[in-house]
Amino acid sequence: MTRCAVIGATGYAGAELCRLLLGHPELGELILSSASSGGEAMSSIYPNLVGAFSAGGSSAILVDKAEAIARADVVFAGLPAGHAEDIAAACAAKGALFIDLSGDFRFGADEATYSKWYGKSYARPELHAEAVYGLPELNRAAIAALGARKSGARTIGNPGCYPTASVLGLFPAMRGKLAEPGCVIVDAKSGVSGAGKEPTKSSHFVECADSIAPYKIEGHRHLPEIEAVLSTMAGTGVSAVFTPHLAPMGRGIVATIYFRLAKAMSAAELREAYASFYAVEPFVRVLGEGLVATNRNVRLSNYCDISVHLAHDGKTAVVVSAIDNMVKGAAGQAVQNMNVALGFDEKAGISMLPPAF
Amino acid sequence: MTRCAVIGATGYAGAELCRLLLGHPELGELILSSASSGGEAMSSIYPNLVGAFSAGGSSAILVDKAEAIARADVVFAGLPAGHAEDIAAACAAKGALFIDLSGDFRFGADEATYSKWYGKSYARPELHAEAVYGLPELNRAAIAALGARKSGARTIGNPGCYPTASVLGLFPAMRGKLAEPGCVIVDAKSGVSGAGKEPTKSSHFVECADSIAPYKIEGHRHLPEIEAVLSTMAGTGVSAVFTPHLAPMGRGIVATIYFRLAKAMSAAELREAYASFYAVEPFVRVLGEGLVATNRNVRLSNYCDISVHLAHDGKTAVVVSAIDNMVKGAAGQAVQNMNVALGFDEKAGISMLPPAF
Amino acid sequence: MTRCAVIGATGYAGAELCRLLLGHPELGELILSSASSGGEAMSSIYPNLVGAFSAGGSSAILVDKAEAIARADVVFAGLPAGHAEDIAAACAAKGALFIDLSGDFRFGADEATYSKWYGKSYARPELHAEAVYGLPELNRAAIAALGARKSGARTIGNPGCYPTASVLGLFPAMRGKLAEPGCVIVDAKSGVSGAGKEPTKSSHFVECADSIAPYKIEGHRHLPEIEAVLSTMAGTGVSAVFTPHLAPMGRGIVATIYFRLAKAMSAAELREAYASFYAVEPFVRVLGEGLVATNRNVRLSNYCDISVHLAHDGKTAVVVSAIDNMVKGAAGQAVQNMNVALGFDEKAGISMLPPAF
Amino acid sequence: MTRCAVIGATGYAGAELCRLLLGHPELGELILSSASSGGEAMSSIYPNLVGAFSAGGSSAILVDKAEAIARADVVFAGLPAGHAEDIAAACAAKGALFIDLSGDFRFGADEATYSKWYGKSYARPELHAEAVYGLPELNRAAIAALGARKSGARTIGNPGCYPTASVLGLFPAMRGKLAEPGCVIVDAKSGVSGAGKEPTKSSHFVECADSIAPYKIEGHRHLPEIEAVLSTMAGTGVSAVFTPHLAPMGRGIVATIYFRLAKAMSAAELREAYASFYAVEPFVRVLGEGLVATNRNVRLSNYCDISVHLAHDGKTAVVVSAIDNMVKGAAGQAVQNMNVALGFDEKAGISMLPPAF
Repeated sequence: MTRCAVIGATGYAGAELCRLLLGHPELGELILSSASSGGEAMSSIYPNLVGAFSAGGSSAILVDKAEAIARADVVFAGLPAGHAEDIAAACAAKGALFIDLSGDFRFGADEATYSKWYGKSYARPELHAEAVYGLPELNRAAIAALGARKSGARTIGNPGCYPTASVLGLFPAMRGKLAEPGCVIVDAKSGVSGAGKEPTKSSHFVECADSIAPYKIEGHRHLPEIEAVLSTMAGTGVSAVFTPHLAPMGRGIVATIYFRLAKAMSAAELREAYASFYAVEPFVRVLGEGLVATNRNVRLSNYCDISVHLAHDGKTAVVVSAIDNMVKGAAGQAVQNMNVALGFDEKAGISMLPPAF
Repeated sequence: MTRCAVIGATGYAGAELCRLLLGHPELGELILSSASSGGEAMSSIYPNLVGAFSAGGSSAILVDKAEAIARADVVFAGLPAGHAEDIAAACAAKGALFIDLSGDFRFGADEATYSKWYGKSYARPELHAEAVYGLPELNRAAIAALGARKSGARTIGNPGCYPTASVLGLFPAMRGKLAEPGCVIVDAKSGVSGAGKEPTKSSHFVECADSIAPYKIEGHRHLPEIEAVLSTMAGTGVSAVFTPHLAPMGRGIVATIYFRLAKAMSAAELREAYASFYAVEPFVRVLGEGLVATNRNVRLSNYCDISVHLAHDGKTAVVVSAIDNMVKGAAGQAVQNMNVALGFDEKAGISMLPPAF
Repeated sequence: MTRCAVIGATGYAGAELCRLLLGHPELGELILSSASSGGEAMSSIYPNLVGAFSAGGSSAILVDKAEAIARADVVFAGLPAGHAEDIAAACAAKGALFIDLSGDFRFGADEATYSKWYGKSYARPELHAEAVYGLPELNRAAIAALGARKSGARTIGNPGCYPTASVLGLFPAMRGKLAEPGCVIVDAKSGVSGAGKEPTKSSHFVECADSIAPYKIEGHRHLPEIEAVLSTMAGTGVSAVFTPHLAPMGRGIVATIYFRLAKAMSAAELREAYASFYAVEPFVRVLGEGLVATNRNVRLSNYCDISVHLAHDGKTAVVVSAIDNMVKGAAGQAVQNMNVALGFDEKAGISMLPPAF
Repeated sequence: MTRCAVIGATGYAGAELCRLLLGHPELGELILSSASSGGEAMSSIYPNLVGAFSAGGSSAILVDKAEAIARADVVFAGLPAGHAEDIAAACAAKGALFIDLSGDFRFGADEATYSKWYGKSYARPELHAEAVYGLPELNRAAIAALGARKSGARTIGNPGCYPTASVLGLFPAMRGKLAEPGCVIVDAKSGVSGAGKEPTKSSHFVECADSIAPYKIEGHRHLPEIEAVLSTMAGTGVSAVFTPHLAPMGRGIVATIYFRLAKAMSAAELREAYASFYAVEPFVRVLGEGLVATNRNVRLSNYCDISVHLAHDGKTAVVVSAIDNMVKGAAGQAVQNMNVALGFDEKAGISMLPPAF
């Protein structure tokens, strides 16, 4: 049985990880850590978890980071950018697997891009060079190989929520050279949980309910992540236009993706290309004709739903990609990465079906 | 392994049952039935379930009622009132357990009350006399005994959503003679899913979003059910005022319950009485001082959260009782009833933790 | 033409006042003040007002409090409790009418109650003794007389939002001795704007959307205000149970009010008593049989809608009272008070019809 | 004073027209018509309007279409497509101005396009040839000239909601040749009121709350309307990709519009081009740097807010255009058209400021 620690447990991604791990069949012990709430009980901060820790060896009491790392086989961190290197080093020193949910380990050796968008530099570049980008649909073998390493750092950079939805929606087109690379537009809509737990003007109910608006149109941190992965896929530099929107929903991302077809195809042909590509994936559902992907149908699950369409002009593909930003876009994918890295059933702990409503 | 049928599978309660049963460890086969959608696939009506039927012996294709009953060991029905007697008779004839989610089997031998509120009469009174009201916290032994019967009808009337929240919030006070029986007020707020799947003016987004209003103030079908159970508990006739409200939420019921204390008590004493009463219940959480029950913290779980307070006058108890109307208020409780009746782990299939958001 | 100042213009009540006053036919000049945003333009903080100040003598630039008072004939303040006495004194010194939206001037000479609930004492008791509680339906003559005074302080304590809804829903019953005074319960549901502009955990979209919960069950500052006014109405001490709830709506309060009938009446008789009582009121609509009051139908208007019902027990009246908390519950009522005090048409500037949705 | 009739008064656009016209300073009499609710009172169907008809010559009682036309100087119709020709003919016969809110009169002489998308043909082509497309920012002079005609039909085709937002967001770019015409993408998000009053599965609260999804990706009726107007503007055929989304909001449309710049420009230069273009328009607000257009800030007003941005690639313009779909997108624009046609103040009856929340 595996001892798992969550650092930053009282943030939204941390709390979601906590909930998912408590239902994971391989969980031996769960250790929770929070810098701001040390000594408090998790269930007093998240009363949805009252009683969840009463049985077994897990405790609701939040401990400090060092203790959490010391006691765990797998460490997850859901902290703001800039804190993960130290944790990665500590995990490497003791041989723990580390899965980081911040942007710190998503850029590999490309420190320049990381620095430009995150305003920080690498103190330990070697850790970044060894890290794997944790999108299993793209990197499953590398994640498994990393997990199986007997020595050295084992660090997984868990993808951002927008990149997960965007990249999965573009992967088959990029790999299959179906899209003109110069004209990719991602118009993405996110629920408010994506902005995190801290109360702000933009997450104030009165400000965001009944309203929708784009933000960071000129540049969002997830853009370089999307471009980097797409460029890898396409084997050439891909430039994307990415516009995130804040929608009055708790959870979910719906990315409406536009690209020019590289050659003429019917909607059915394009759909079939996607369906074949993802046929063996446990968490990607390419929807049949007549269905449109929506966050509603993947809520609280680890699924990414994709629907494939042609615009009326017959030349522009419209791919809709929907995830639960907190599950496939964060905590669920982190668990999936652990499962792949440690050789567990890939669906362990994250096989729940989305509710109809 | 148990073969379960859901009749009325495409209604909201039916769809929720379907989702829960697909994750139940004792499920052998799931058979779904719908009068309106026979021959269609469940997953085309509820795309959240795409892929859920691909593995194992369950099928997404909706069959007719007779076939569903013929193939099942346990039959659940989520139909409008008036259809359950025939199903109960058919189940009795073949020895299947029947759990009915309508109001048909909630009134036992009291046909007069049923007729007054539902406008129908009993065709088979003997089935009602034998049926058990399926609130496990109240009737666990009777449910288990019914399930263990070797002959005769085995019919469980699954409680209404409002009665579940209201009765659990009043049970300790009634049994402990802590409340003056003449002055019980239940001001209950329900999410829109309680009104069912059929689109109506009152469930139209534009009509109900951003609004709250009571309805059926002069009399709602759940009032006599509440009064009947409370009277049983108190050992005397209890008259309640019950006002349901439609709130702009998908799921959940919060019942704010007022009663006069029969004798002076502090809030702590009253809370302790509730906590002791429910100490052994797996699905009732009496919250500690400082917490207030809300549907938010029980969403998608089978929990009933209860918080206990005194109003500023020091004489009026205010008990807040919160459930997910579709889980503990319908489908989850039906699974709990099956578990109790058939001797399964009472939490099997319904042990999921509520998400924080 | 009247020069109006709003102190605390960037709070929610202040911003709403600003919007209403800009459409008021008697407005000569509007002066806005904000301690936190002095020198900024109102329209940069509230972009809904872009362009609203371009015409006429009003300016969007926020000035300091002293300047605002110096330039105005009528001063409105929408500040937290504890700041109004100084403003009242300054207004008295220059002969300006002062309408305060905080709790500071709602308790008249009863400093003890104010101190108990607000934790502050009176520095200038004489100002409180002279102030009028600004509920026009209750105190129209006194408000007009105050406005017509040629010397001395002219201070109006604008009622709280919950007290406005609660008191208007109980006024006819109390005055007509129709209610047993010992058993009044107000179960009130408010939109999130009632909690103000400051982002907090409880106003975070993710925390409050799709959820409803009572708060401050043991005692809310509006309880003593409700009890004081009801006691005045009834001519005897009235004790009420008041439970506020936070509902996932932007605006609006719906108070579901329960009381025992002092003598047997039909619902029609009780409704007729209410309708007669309010027949001449421009802003109170007693709804006909079959309609239920809801915040939906009064949104963005100065109306208070009231529907009158009997519970199924035939003994308990259920009165539903609905207002827009920011209009009739705050800014609109403040304008109404100005209109009455200064002899304007009572509906001037606040005659807008509520939208259907 | 002008006598106005609204045919289809009980639909959402009709009800909104009714509310706006009741506050119009030139209104002499308001006559309401409904095929489905003849003889009923408007205020029993829309209780927000209780009391609104008590004063003056207007009546709440719904009359038939013929009576409405006979009594009116200006006729508005808010019916489904296919009913407007007969009304136009009747209005022409008696010399009334007719403003149609359906798609029937938006395509001028282009019957082929109308037939393709609406499945109907023209019975009276001459009426279409004479009709004016009622977007005042585009066609103000033509609307005024039509209104001033002493003989012949005077028919205005009021634009669709999506076309209003889309076209206003593209007008300066098209006229100024700032956009490459071949690559225009409109990703538009609408509130649920856009789908009308009829309850349907997609407008059911439980189905659409907390969810967002595109619909009619392959072709929506508003696409040819957008393309026709843009082609007129650009003086060449423009092909657009248009993807409408249903967002969980009551009101509002936010169109996120993408186009390639025809020549290099800074965001400030592009913004200035828009600001200059619309400088004299009373209802278009081009927002300053740092602000993003959202439906929140135009709600219940006749404004169209536009914000102008460049994507990170520096080559793609991102223009955000926001309206209230029921006001500038329907009823408010219809009133604006009446004002222009009859020589009233263009802002009469529609000068209300949007509330902050």
